[in-house]
Amino acid sequence: MIAEILATGDEIRSGALIDSNSAYIAQNLEESGVEVLRHICVGDDMDIMVSTLMAISNRADFCVVTGGLGPTTDDITAEAAAKAAEVDLFLEHNALKNIEDFFKNRKRLMSSSNQKQALMPQGAAVIYNYAGTAPGFHLKINRCVFFFIPGVPFEMKKMLINDVIPNIYNLCGKKRDFCLIKTISTFGITEAATGEKLVGIESVFPDLKIGFRAKFPEIQVKIYLYGKDEKILNKRMDEACQWILAKIGSKTFSVQGKTMEAEVAQLLLKQKSTIAVAESCTGGLISHRLTNIPGSSGYFLFSAISYSNESKIKVLGVSPETLQINGAVHEETVKEMAEGAKNLAGADYGLSTSGIAGPSGGTNDKPVGTLCIGIATPKGTKAFRFNSVFDKRSMNKAVFAMKALDLFRRELLLLDV
Amino acid sequence: MIAEILATGDEIRSGALIDSNSAYIAQNLEESGVEVLRHICVGDDMDIMVSTLMAISNRADFCVVTGGLGPTTDDITAEAAAKAAEVDLFLEHNALKNIEDFFKNRKRLMSSSNQKQALMPQGAAVIYNYAGTAPGFHLKINRCVFFFIPGVPFEMKKMLINDVIPNIYNLCGKKRDFCLIKTISTFGITEAATGEKLVGIESVFPDLKIGFRAKFPEIQVKIYLYGKDEKILNKRMDEACQWILAKIGSKTFSVQGKTMEAEVAQLLLKQKSTIAVAESCTGGLISHRLTNIPGSSGYFLFSAISYSNESKIKVLGVSPETLQINGAVHEETVKEMAEGAKNLAGADYGLSTSGIAGPSGGTNDKPVGTLCIGIATPKGTKAFRFNSVFDKRSMNKAVFAMKALDLFRRELLLLDV
Repeated sequence: MIAEILATGDEIRSGALIDSNSAYIAQNLEESGVEVLRHICVGDDMDIMVSTLMAISNRADFCVVTGGLGPTTDDITAEAAAKAAEVDLFLEHNALKNIEDFFKNRKRLMSSSNQKQALMPQGAAVIYNYAGTAPGFHLKINRCVFFFIPGVPFEMKKMLINDVIPNIYNLCGKKRDFCLIKTISTFGITEAATGEKLVGIESVFPDLKIGFRAKFPEIQVKIYLYGKDEKILNKRMDEACQWILAKIGSKTFSVQGKTMEAEVAQLLLKQKSTIAVAESCTGGLISHRLTNIPGSSGYFLFSAISYSNESKIKVLGVSPETLQINGAVHEETVKEMAEGAKNLAGADYGLSTSGIAGPSGGTNDKPVGTLCIGIATPKGTKAFRFNSVFDKRSMNKAVFAMKALDLFRRELLLLDV
Repeated sequence: MIAEILATGDEIRSGALIDSNSAYIAQNLEESGVEVLRHICVGDDMDIMVSTLMAISNRADFCVVTGGLGPTTDDITAEAAAKAAEVDLFLEHNALKNIEDFFKNRKRLMSSSNQKQALMPQGAAVIYNYAGTAPGFHLKINRCVFFFIPGVPFEMKKMLINDVIPNIYNLCGKKRDFCLIKTISTFGITEAATGEKLVGIESVFPDLKIGFRAKFPEIQVKIYLYGKDEKILNKRMDEACQWILAKIGSKTFSVQGKTMEAEVAQLLLKQKSTIAVAESCTGGLISHRLTNIPGSSGYFLFSAISYSNESKIKVLGVSPETLQINGAVHEETVKEMAEGAKNLAGADYGLSTSGIAGPSGGTNDKPVGTLCIGIATPKGTKAFRFNSVFDKRSMNKAVFAMKALDLFRRELLLLDV
């Protein structure tokens, strides 16, 4: 069973608005076992809309069309559908009542232009809209069943989940496939290197589809499995996961599509441990990420963003001599910063960063991209130095924060760095 | 001149990723005077990609294709382009050198699979990529010039602006119109309310095109003006800008498309003032945003992310009595936090937040969404309380940080809150 998605509207066509509907629809269709072959977006243009509907009607089993069901003159989707199906429009009385009720229930006046929204192509069946004024409809044209729903995300989502997807289930009958999706998240390895490590996977798992997604600075490996038997699919997914993990090794930080900070949070909560942070070059990003997790007050106690040397000394208790001898970006300095944060907050762990995020501030000795990380644990304090540089300050900050969180995760898991 | 946009990749096709590239490209093409007729998205499937390229090649003048230029096996765009053009692939030595340089400059090892990225269809001309490993290329097939560029937004944008758009300008010749664009950024007003305030703009400025973009939590108003005479356009743009600013009023924080933190940074640098921050509910996000600006050490001294009451007392000097009587989320508490941060760092200003970002932690008295903000200035300290709640913790944090930065900006400008 093959589906296409058609988004209509000049705002989307011209790029004034990002089309997030199509991704939402695609995900729900794929999870229902229907393969999405293509999305298309066209503007409010009758000829193009009609020819696009006709092309889809001959190659797809289902198509979800969004937008163009409103009351204004640029809303032409119902008319385009009628033209593509070579039928006339008629006034659907149940749809009209639905619209009238919408206004009545909200004690608002219905304008005459809303009547137009109850006009549908002959042969269409209403899809009721309880969240807005535009009813949708479904209609078979050639081999394809089209579902026409509004473009307003809130209304679209309700109608897709409550009406379109169950309808597709019924129409598919037993032909429906299951779809399993798994996300493996890695950090510290490029997309190219990840791909190379997985060379040969097609011959071991010919039934599996694999995709790579760069979600800077992490690389996600997505595994898709389609089939009729959910049990067999689960077993195959486990096998594929094991195979991939053996190849990628310790660069993996989540097999559940979780963020690095969610993994760290889970470990801290499990170990009933707390953390305090001292950030220089990461400027608050580590703290921001750690506190994005609901319930973060259960493990996150305190962070000092100590940009100035004075604050490193005054708040964190870094020794002026250490700073004078080594500078702010140094293993000894981050050790004292991590210990200072840990002691100040009475936390089990201290995590610190000091580095050069650029674009300026680099020297021969410590170029932009230099990063020192300190980790104070109940058993002692460690420090590390790295260098990797990206084109933008914000990218360097993102990598620095990720590296520090990853090192800390490894510390909690007693993994090698 | 007519253009189409083709986005490739299984992540987009399957809905795992929202395609924001196509809107960006459409906007830039339209601004260059080229009409975008259609966007299409297909997965990493050779047959579908080839047939789609061939269909476009017969109906459009230009097409921008994103994605599928990476080093892994699912990157098949160059091969599909060669098939559609009925030519072979060849190793483009300049492109290869570009890739090798990319790795050399970053002191990183190049994988052998990256070589594949220099394979291009016969007749193609390289589009260099200085921000990533995947070079692009342009190639004429039938009536259409195709521009193939990577799907990574950062790289795509650079190549589109630096290479594709100027190339299209050249190919269009004198048929091109000028296009002026202005971005007005607002905070604290919904998209619908912004739209309502601007009702009637079409009759005052019939030559102007307007678009709204929700970039949570800000709403951007985009103004487009097309024409042959740049001087006249500039004058019209000024008039339109004045008209819009008079309608939207003080909710505007930038007329240059700048971020809130960039506006705050500019004011601090101009006034040669420094800031220290004390964050509770925003968890580091204010500091992260303030330190995203290159040169932030010129105004940002220190921040304390004081999640625990203990750290509020110990580090910031908040009085235990204040906390006991009022709790952590209170005007008195944020006043002492702001003063504590200011004094500790020796800064001119102190900015503090304490609130309930959710999903849990709310009470009848202080529900989720409650936010207290403190501002310590050389002339005294103020405090404010607000409540607004969104569906997700991360959204609440984003709104809280934006609200605090906006209040602080108003303080620096001596504007009303």
